[in-house]
Amino acid sequence: MALFDKFNKLIQERATFIQTELSPFGTRIDEIYSPTEGRIGECRVILAGTNNYLGLTFDPTCLDAARQSLEHEGTGTTGSRMANGSYSGHIALEAELADFFQRRSVILFSTGYLANLGTIGTLTGPGDIVLLDADCHASIYDACKLSGAQIIRFRHNDAHDLERRMLRLGEQAKDALIIVEGIYSMLGDYAPLKEIAEIKRQLGGYLLVDEAHSVGVMGKHGRGLAEELNVESDVDIVLGTFSKTLGAIGGFAASHHPEFNLLRYASRPYIFTASPSPASIASVRAALQVMIDQPELRTRLWANARHLHKGLVDLGYCVGPQVSPVIPVLLESPEKGMFFWQKLIKHGVYVNLVLPPATPSGQALVRCSVSAAHTPEQIDRIIGAFAQLMAEPRKEAVSNAQGATRPGYR
Amino acid sequence: MALFDKFNKLIQERATFIQTELSPFGTRIDEIYSPTEGRIGECRVILAGTNNYLGLTFDPTCLDAARQSLEHEGTGTTGSRMANGSYSGHIALEAELADFFQRRSVILFSTGYLANLGTIGTLTGPGDIVLLDADCHASIYDACKLSGAQIIRFRHNDAHDLERRMLRLGEQAKDALIIVEGIYSMLGDYAPLKEIAEIKRQLGGYLLVDEAHSVGVMGKHGRGLAEELNVESDVDIVLGTFSKTLGAIGGFAASHHPEFNLLRYASRPYIFTASPSPASIASVRAALQVMIDQPELRTRLWANARHLHKGLVDLGYCVGPQVSPVIPVLLESPEKGMFFWQKLIKHGVYVNLVLPPATPSGQALVRCSVSAAHTPEQIDRIIGAFAQLMAEPRKEAVSNAQGATRPGYR
Repeated sequence: MALFDKFNKLIQERATFIQTELSPFGTRIDEIYSPTEGRIGECRVILAGTNNYLGLTFDPTCLDAARQSLEHEGTGTTGSRMANGSYSGHIALEAELADFFQRRSVILFSTGYLANLGTIGTLTGPGDIVLLDADCHASIYDACKLSGAQIIRFRHNDAHDLERRMLRLGEQAKDALIIVEGIYSMLGDYAPLKEIAEIKRQLGGYLLVDEAHSVGVMGKHGRGLAEELNVESDVDIVLGTFSKTLGAIGGFAASHHPEFNLLRYASRPYIFTASPSPASIASVRAALQVMIDQPELRTRLWANARHLHKGLVDLGYCVGPQVSPVIPVLLESPEKGMFFWQKLIKHGVYVNLVLPPATPSGQALVRCSVSAAHTPEQIDRIIGAFAQLMAEPRKEAVSNAQGATRPGYR
Repeated sequence: MALFDKFNKLIQERATFIQTELSPFGTRIDEIYSPTEGRIGECRVILAGTNNYLGLTFDPTCLDAARQSLEHEGTGTTGSRMANGSYSGHIALEAELADFFQRRSVILFSTGYLANLGTIGTLTGPGDIVLLDADCHASIYDACKLSGAQIIRFRHNDAHDLERRMLRLGEQAKDALIIVEGIYSMLGDYAPLKEIAEIKRQLGGYLLVDEAHSVGVMGKHGRGLAEELNVESDVDIVLGTFSKTLGAIGGFAASHHPEFNLLRYASRPYIFTASPSPASIASVRAALQVMIDQPELRTRLWANARHLHKGLVDLGYCVGPQVSPVIPVLLESPEKGMFFWQKLIKHGVYVNLVLPPATPSGQALVRCSVSAAHTPEQIDRIIGAFAQLMAEPRKEAVSNAQGATRPGYR
């Protein structure tokens, strides 16, 4: 087959969505006014489809740190961490994150995707076994594929299914790597980590938790779901990102294992990638400090999450199974998803449209996410926009019975 | 095997190098004074081991663009290009690069590693054939592995070996993807692209050239090796990075194929990674313009490359086979490499140490790279430091017969 012929199917499938004036796949945000407001074409919108959970992208101390870094260290390192790309800021951030997570070692990566690829893909290889929640992020799947390890998927958030599969492995379970996420990005639900930790205590194995969406969001100090559920000592490796709560780009892996720091000498996505730009590192260091110093941001974030969740439920929408800053509204078809997504922009609200196969069978969802920086009035306006859609002429029935009932879903 | 046991071998192999006071694997550069000067511990050093080819990391227009972007767009997008991470700057840079490379479509990626992963790993899959120069970068190998395509390596820079392997493929050669690099990062040599283009014209296939080290460095306009050799119309896909000449972080793929732009709707490393930070994008846009407006930077870069190359040859060192801004000095053992690398820092010069298996059999190399921002006096000081090493008491014989004689090496 000619190399480019493989895109023909995609062209047919996506043509209607890609070619519309307002495409949901790569919407241009023409201007950014604040962490929560921007402009798309003629529409001024509330940004309710970002991962800017604490709203730190315009925090004055973060901006100032980035500016200072630009002046003193320039626009980039032009080298990998293993060559000339380890500046004092990179090493300081690793120490600060180790301190924050109370782990012996932290390794930075240039994106969150690369953190998963570089950690999972190096820790495991042919002959190893990975037990994976079926709803794990694409970067985790790609990491497993690159590693060559045997992948065993268990049903999403089903600790019992995990246990059954581990029992079947017998002695091999002791060396297997279990991977789950703190908050899952599609439905905003979180792993049953207490039960999973208990299974690990019984049957062995290593536990890796990707806290990409939960750092700064859950736990008394913002260390994520494991802190929230008081099972941090059962977690072998914490993964996280700088492109959500911490407002920049990059990722990290943290562990208490004495050998963990050596991973950087073997991890190809670490060794063969340019290191994060000094200004990103500087803003992340400042953001980490703001996150530590201002726990009230987390309080505000959850108040906003409950506010929006309740508002949408009251309107009769089918939302995710648990309250979190990620609030999906499940709709019965891609066409309906597209209709909602476009209308919401016209009504001044930007959310994310997610279509199959990234969603449960045949459904679509518009994914809202809240920020500590949203005002209660902005949350009301988001709810108001969804209310207007209820009254739109092209409105189709939104069944509350659908959505959270996929097989094996708790 | 317990998960962390796999690092035991690494610990044994690397212990001497990792545990020394001045480790070559992740040297901390304590301060950066300019594109060409920094401090490592007590030593003020000339930076001769970066990819800062035009020295643009402190260019006032690049810094100013980054600062402006920080103020108006914040520290990060907190989202992927497919969600909320396509700002006007990302789209403008794609258009500007398309214009510069005279290609229909350009797709940005968040790092250069991801550009290879996201392009090669999406264009090819099981059933496809990739013909790969054996010395291609790790990210190209990882991309091929992730794709599941059949990989056929041909001898480094050996167009005849490529031709033989393609002839053996028969009709299948027509749909195969040939991958080479502009300038190779280890030895600074460049692909025999005229011969390879001719083979492609005869036997078919698609040609992808990773111009990571050659954009801004080769060609009348800085479009790379393909422009230099006047074979751009034979190249189907150009890959490049923002973390070398363009002084920031990120990567791109460019192509004239009408379907190419659709790759972004299928490329997992593109879809599932946060988009580049607005400030990086802004500085890259400015750097691209500086690169276009100031061809004299390229002239200065090559004068520096010739100056350093000649100086090292005159001293009797064994350097790479072709003159380019990447100038490796080949040494007979890892121990000697380590000795050189550490002594050079003491003498005020920072270079990269590269050890087997990343180098030809058993050898080590210290890799120098020059920048347009180096002054002739700085180049003389680099040569002076190498001259001092010639006279060091622990000096071992440096044979000029070694190095460029690996099997199949032109």
